[in-house]
This record gives sequence, structure tokens and C-alpha cells, in this order.
Amino acid sequence: MQFTYIFLMASNITSKEENYSAWYNDIALKADLAENSAVRGCMVIKPYGCSLWENMRDILDKMFKKTGHVNAYFPLFIPKSFFSREASHVDGFAKECAVVTHYRLKNSADNKGIVVDESAKLEEELIVRPTSETIIWNTYKNWIQSYRDLPVLCNQWANVVRWEMRTRLFLRTAEFLWQEGHTAHATAEEALAETERMINIYADFAQNYMAMPVIKGRKSANERFAGALDTYCIEALMQDGKALQAGTSHFLGQNFAKAFDVKFLNKENQLDYVWATSWGVSTRLIGALIMVHSDNNGLVLPPKIAPLQVVIVPVYKDLDTLAKISAIAERIKVDLESKNISVKYDDRDSYRSGWKFNEYEVKGVPVRITIGPRDLENEQVEICRRDTLEKQLVSQATLTSTVEDLLSQIQENLFNKAAQFQQNNIRKADTWEEFTQILEKHGGFVSAHWDGTTQTEEIIKEKTKATIRCIPFDNPQEDGKCILTGKPSKERVLFAKAY
Amino acid sequence: MQFTYIFLMASNITSKEENYSAWYNDIALKADLAENSAVRGCMVIKPYGCSLWENMRDILDKMFKKTGHVNAYFPLFIPKSFFSREASHVDGFAKECAVVTHYRLKNSADNKGIVVDESAKLEEELIVRPTSETIIWNTYKNWIQSYRDLPVLCNQWANVVRWEMRTRLFLRTAEFLWQEGHTAHATAEEALAETERMINIYADFAQNYMAMPVIKGRKSANERFAGALDTYCIEALMQDGKALQAGTSHFLGQNFAKAFDVKFLNKENQLDYVWATSWGVSTRLIGALIMVHSDNNGLVLPPKIAPLQVVIVPVYKDLDTLAKISAIAERIKVDLESKNISVKYDDRDSYRSGWKFNEYEVKGVPVRITIGPRDLENEQVEICRRDTLEKQLVSQATLTSTVEDLLSQIQENLFNKAAQFQQNNIRKADTWEEFTQILEKHGGFVSAHWDGTTQTEEIIKEKTKATIRCIPFDNPQEDGKCILTGKPSKERVLFAKAY
Repeated sequence: MQFTYIFLMASNITSKEENYSAWYNDIALKADLAENSAVRGCMVIKPYGCSLWENMRDILDKMFKKTGHVNAYFPLFIPKSFFSREASHVDGFAKECAVVTHYRLKNSADNKGIVVDESAKLEEELIVRPTSETIIWNTYKNWIQSYRDLPVLCNQWANVVRWEMRTRLFLRTAEFLWQEGHTAHATAEEALAETERMINIYADFAQNYMAMPVIKGRKSANERFAGALDTYCIEALMQDGKALQAGTSHFLGQNFAKAFDVKFLNKENQLDYVWATSWGVSTRLIGALIMVHSDNNGLVLPPKIAPLQVVIVPVYKDLDTLAKISAIAERIKVDLESKNISVKYDDRDSYRSGWKFNEYEVKGVPVRITIGPRDLENEQVEICRRDTLEKQLVSQATLTSTVEDLLSQIQENLFNKAAQFQQNNIRKADTWEEFTQILEKHGGFVSAHWDGTTQTEEIIKEKTKATIRCIPFDNPQEDGKCILTGKPSKERVLFAKAY
Repeated sequence: MQFTYIFLMASNITSKEENYSAWYNDIALKADLAENSAVRGCMVIKPYGCSLWENMRDILDKMFKKTGHVNAYFPLFIPKSFFSREASHVDGFAKECAVVTHYRLKNSADNKGIVVDESAKLEEELIVRPTSETIIWNTYKNWIQSYRDLPVLCNQWANVVRWEMRTRLFLRTAEFLWQEGHTAHATAEEALAETERMINIYADFAQNYMAMPVIKGRKSANERFAGALDTYCIEALMQDGKALQAGTSHFLGQNFAKAFDVKFLNKENQLDYVWATSWGVSTRLIGALIMVHSDNNGLVLPPKIAPLQVVIVPVYKDLDTLAKISAIAERIKVDLESKNISVKYDDRDSYRSGWKFNEYEVKGVPVRITIGPRDLENEQVEICRRDTLEKQLVSQATLTSTVEDLLSQIQENLFNKAAQFQQNNIRKADTWEEFTQILEKHGGFVSAHWDGTTQTEEIIKEKTKATIRCIPFDNPQEDGKCILTGKPSKERVLFAKAY
């Protein structure tokens, strides 16, 4: 047996302080989450990133189903004419649409390559869905005749395409994965209740699984979804002080029902248009996850969604010792797995233990267990938690319960740390000077009065790059003056620079 | 409280004997599995169909992961130039490609509608993936340097598009859902072993979950995947005597590694091209499922993949009786669910029990439990199995174990029935006359000698529409003469007309 050690440097991750944007990119790449593909703006989600997304998807899917939703699948393509039916919707998406115009390739006349067959031109162009309201409401027309057919509570897990000019892994890509819920209701009240139910589910998921504190609220008119009467959102704060919209839930009123002529016979036997909501979260959440918890050593993952919760690494000099360590490691693995903890025992002989330590640190595995010759003697192991990098020696006899507790502690600690950071970074501003100084000096959220007009919002954005992230749901009502115009205002809103 | 009974006719499903194709379509539509969309050739997979697909996906996904595979996600779009790199691959797919040529829409000059913005033309057209070998092997080039990076065992769950001219729900649609595995290996032997492993997994899934007997074998050169050196397949027999290819696993040799220049340093420190496989099954399996088991009353589903295994329907005349039935039904539901059986109690007062019986029969729910006033007195229920439509009275005390047994029996019965049908429909032909008579009179598989040439295969196809479905793996070797040319042959192959 030949020992083949591979000597590699610790992954060089740019520090946050040096270059936040490079730090983000390094983590996405070096933690093996994703990479850029040969196709402009499209990413490859690598196995580790895909496993993380599957965990997030499965948890959300259960939450959706528990609240009565079902999954369906609608076409990837949307006829161009469908887009024109809802005026503000087409305005919102027309500039970033991938358009299919032909359905065949052929060999070129000079036989030098393959070209588009001009004789196979579509009569009507097809848009690769950027979102599916139009094709879905065209379908609902056939599903809904009477109040008995309502509510319709469908969700779809799908890929969508928005032709972004400047892209970044997870945060802004031409193609991304998401879920989009599209529901149909008999009354405005019911639709509004659904809009709220779903933003609450997103907040629950963000906080209790991603350990990411969020602020729930509604968008200003200017920031609403194209075609919505009201947009609810959850906003999270990244470590660089910029906000990130992590999920949205839209009250669409009767806009799409009118655009696609979807009427139903109500209990009073009268025809009325159907009320709608739509709501979605996407792989963008992985970008948020990276930025909320990670450090200069790499990714940090909350245990509840980590693809791998515990890794066991043997430290040894000879194969005889490895055999003894392996016997114990396999037993530990079985014990932990019986508690539904995911465990990998990495006994690869072609990599050194130091290389492995680094690998799992960069990938953010919450708990590492190390077993060496000394631990064999003392019937103990060393455990290291990824969030604080603290190590401790633990008796093999009590290991399982210690690890269980530790995973809970890590989950809690990550949330508390992020919540503290968020709380420290919501600052009140009562003058324009305070407002701009906070944005320049600290970033974060600025809680300030605003006169309620889109015009003012746009001037503020132009001058500071800050936008209204949301009008929090639990906002106290108080008299004040708009930060820019001095006009009267009844409540503060949250401004921030955002992703 | 007002009783609102809805009187509806039993769903009119065309009988198989009258019009097999209409029967198929009726079941897909009336069992609420899918429907045609407004987009040519694209279907909407409805919630019931989607739930069925998710069950199938989850079982397969577990089988893939258990054998060491991981999921990843690759771009929807493939640059046109990638296709040209592997000559036979482009020949196979060029004629059915959806092509993206532009990335923006705009308002028309006359302001009368929305048009493609000609100034936003792509430099290189993008193909909506019909299969992902090219984009994936272009990615693998960066993942694989040494034998230590091998094997790469990736799978992806995705949508793909093939521009079919004549489409049918599930069987042949422009867009469909599937999984595509793409693996990379250090040796031809390893890649061949993987090709075989995956066709065995597909056969296991088809037989033990879908209750669908299949014949495993290899394709003739003519029927191979575009770019493969060898294609293994599973073939199933539909009730109309036509075969359906239910899954394929391809040995790709070094073709794609050469096309995308993917080399690795082997253990002897020499550069070599990587060996490849790819394998996939799609929503087409749902089409197979419909055709293998269903009858003139509607869909029949094997319990192991049914979205709903048991439905409980109350029969009552007054709400007082309903309340008593509900108490028992809820208890039964809890008991069955504790055994991991999925149960729905349909106590909707707006539909009659007869309407419900029909509904669940059409949808193929394996077991129906009926509870009426008499059953309350006698502490019994009536159960009806969907496969044979047999009814029996069962004591409430022993119901759970009876239903558990019954679900196993139904699963087994469906497989045995289909296996018997398949066995009865494999016929040997030793002369051209026998061959054509069997195809005309019975359909099914015809086991016959063939001289091994593509030319002969094509003449046979032209004359009879039958193709070589596969050369079975466990084929006995025997001397014989080609059914068409009389030339010597060493083994029989299976011919059939196919979907």
C-alpha cells in the first residue's frame, strides 16, 4: 500500500474586510456551491450546493403542503401575446426576456457548421418564463367555474430566466431555480389572508431553519411586483450592511383574472372575477445564507439545513491505528445517524487530516469530530464547532447527546448573532444629514419618515442609492416629517442600500 | 344547513376496445393527471399527476443516492457551437431544437403591441437543452484532472425540450420532465459496469414500484442514442400490444471526452480521455403506467406509487349519521396513517357518495372504504379494491391489517397480471409470413432471427412498422436464419411496433 499525501495550501479566501464582494465569490466557489458556466449569466449548481437547495426545498415544500397547497407543473414557454394582456406586468419583464424564435437547426449550405433553419420560424415567438402568472391564469380559466372550484392553491418548483446584464452567483443569475405559488380565491379577504399566510411561512423558514432574522413588511408602490396591488416581503441584513429581499408574497387583486377573463359563479349565483396571489423564493436564498453567517475561513451553515451536519476525521500515522479508529468512528456514525444526524466518516488515505480539516471548515460543516491515537487510549474524541471554532474533548460514552445539544446550540447561536447584528444596524434618522451619514458610515437599515410619494423615493434613491426596503407590519404610528421634503408623515419606513 | 347535491354523470371514458388512443387520452385527462396547454406540444401537469411524479422521483432519487450518485444542476441553455462538437449527437437532435435568438422585447413602433427587440440579438444562438451531455462535459473539463477526481457520479432532475411535431400527453411532448445521469470514469470497464448498474436500477423501479414488467437488453446500432457506443434499455408492453421504451442507459465511450477535451492523469501518470455514461427516465413513465394497468373505468395505480392509497367515503342521509361516521373514519385514518398508508377522508357534503365513488375509481385510488349507517351498527366497513373492483365487508377491529395486506396483494396482482400478459405476447417467428401475421393479428413482441445489419432492420421497419426493441441480455445463443434475408444469425432479437 502506497501512501499518497497531497499537500495543498489552505484555501485562500479573500477577507471580508479586504474585499467583501471577492470574499462572497470565493466562498461560493471554494465551498463548492456553484460556479459560472460557459453560458452567459447561467450558473452550474454543484452537488454540495444542490444538496443544500434540496434541503431547503423539502422543508418549504412540507410547509406549503401542510397549509393545503399542492404542486403542479406549467409550461416553460409563454406565448408573447400573453405578456401583453396585463399592462404593468409586461412593462416589468419585457426588457429581460429570453425569446425562442425558431425550432430547428440544420447544416449550413457550405457544410461548415450548424445554423438556425430559417424555414422553421415560429409564427408567434415564445418567451422562456421569467415568472408564470400569465400562463397559469390562462390555465385557471378552464379550472374555475364556480365557488366550489375555489380556492385553487398551486405551487410549482421550476427554473425561470431573466436576462440580467450583471450577474453574480445565486444573487443575480440569468437562470435560477425557485418556487412560485399561484392561488385563486373567491374574495379579496381570502386572497389577502393567503398573501399574509405565505409571507409568515417564509419568515418562519428564514428564521427557524436558515437562522436568518428578517423584517416583515409591505413594499412601497414603486417596489411592488409588476401586476400586484400589494407586495409583502421579508428583508434580511447582510454583513456588509446591505439589505437583501429574501422572499415576496403578492396580492394581485383581480388583475390577472381580468386579463385572462377568469370568472366564477359565486354563492349568490352571480359571475365575479377571481382574486389572486402569487409568492416565491429562489436560489437567491443561498446567497443570503452565505452572507449572513460566513466568516473569513469559509462558509458557516445552520445545522438544520446543512447537507452534512457532522464529519469524522481520523488522525493517524499507520494503517493499524486507522483500523482501530475506524471501528470507533463507524460505531459513532451509527449512533448519530440513529438520531437523524447526517454524518460522513472521511477515511480517505489520499488526503492528510490537515487538508480535510480545512476542506470541511471551508464547506461549513457544523461539527467536526477528530479521533487520534491518544483518543483511543482515553476513550474520548475532540469535537470542534464551526461557528465559534471552539474545541473540546468529549467522552465517547456521552458523545451522541453532546453532539445533539451542540447542533441545537449552533443553530441558536447563529440566529442570535445575526439578530443582534440586525438590531444594532437599524438606526433612526430625523434629518437629511443624519440619514446620509448613517448610510455612509454604517449602512444597515435607516428608519425614517417619508412623505409617501414615489417621486420622493426616487430622488432619495438617486442621491444615496438607498431604497425603501419595506414598511414594517408592526410599525408604530407617529407624526413626523419626511426626511427629504419635510412634508408630514404618519410612520417611519426602512431604507437601505440593497442587493 | 342546505344540502347541495351535485348530480353528475359517471365520467365517460372511451373503451379501449372502441378506440385505444381515445381511451388513453380520456384517462390522462379525466384522472386529472395532465392537460394540453396553450403552448403547442407543452402539457400542464396537474396536481394529481404532479404528486404521482414526485413519488416516482423520490423513490428513484433514493436509489440513485444509495448507489453513490449526487444531484447537480446545469444550465437550461446550450450554446449552439457545443452541439457541433460531437457529430452524431448533433445529427440526432438538430431537427427538434428550440432556439433562443434574442434577449429583449419592446413596444412596437406603432405602439400596437409588443415585439422582439431586434437590437437585442444574441451573438451566438442558445439551444434549450434537449439533453445535457454537451454542456455537462464542457463543465467536467474543469472538474477532472486526475484519477483522484474520478468517478464523477452526477444526476440532474430537469425539464428538457424536443420540438416534436406530433405530441401526446406524457408519451411525446415538446417539454418534459426527466432525470439525466452523467458519469465520468477512469476505465471502460467501470463505465460499462455503471451503464449496467443503472439499467438494473430502472428495471428494479419499473417492476417493484410501478408493477410493470420489463425486458432488459441492448439496442441495435440503429436505435442507439446519438453519440453512444452502446445503449441498454428496458422495454415494456402496453395493453394494445405496442412496446414502449421505458428507460435507457448509454455507454458513451470516450466520445464526449474527446469532443470537449476532457483528459485525466491516470495512476500510471499518463494522460487519457475520460470514459462516460448517461442514463435517463422521464414523465413518459406516467404514460406507460396508464397503459399497463388501467381499465375502462379509469386509471389503476400500483399502491407503492399512488398519490393516495386509501379513500374513505361516508354514505349517509342526515348530518347526525355523518357525525357518527366521521368519528369512526377519523380513527381509521389515524390508524392507517400510523402504518405509513396515505388516506383521505372525503366528507364533503356538496358531492354525493355515488359521485365520489366514480371520482376515485377514475383516479385509480387502490382501496376505497365505505362506511354507512348499517356499518355503524355492525362495527364493520365495506372495502373495495380498485384493481378487481371486488368488495368485502371487514370488521373495524381488523381493518388496518386487512388494508395493509390488501395493498400488498394489489401491488402483486398488478405485476402478475401484466407479467402474464407480457409472457403471452412474446411469440417466436421463423418465417416472414409468421412474422407479419403475428404483428397483424396479435401485436406484442416477436422473437426472430435477424442478420445484424441496419439495412435489413430498416426494410423490416418500412414493411411492417416494427423495430428491434432490444437484444435481451439473457438471450440464448442459437443458429438461425434472418427473417427477411435468410442470412445466418446467432441469436433472436425482439421486434415490436412501438410508441
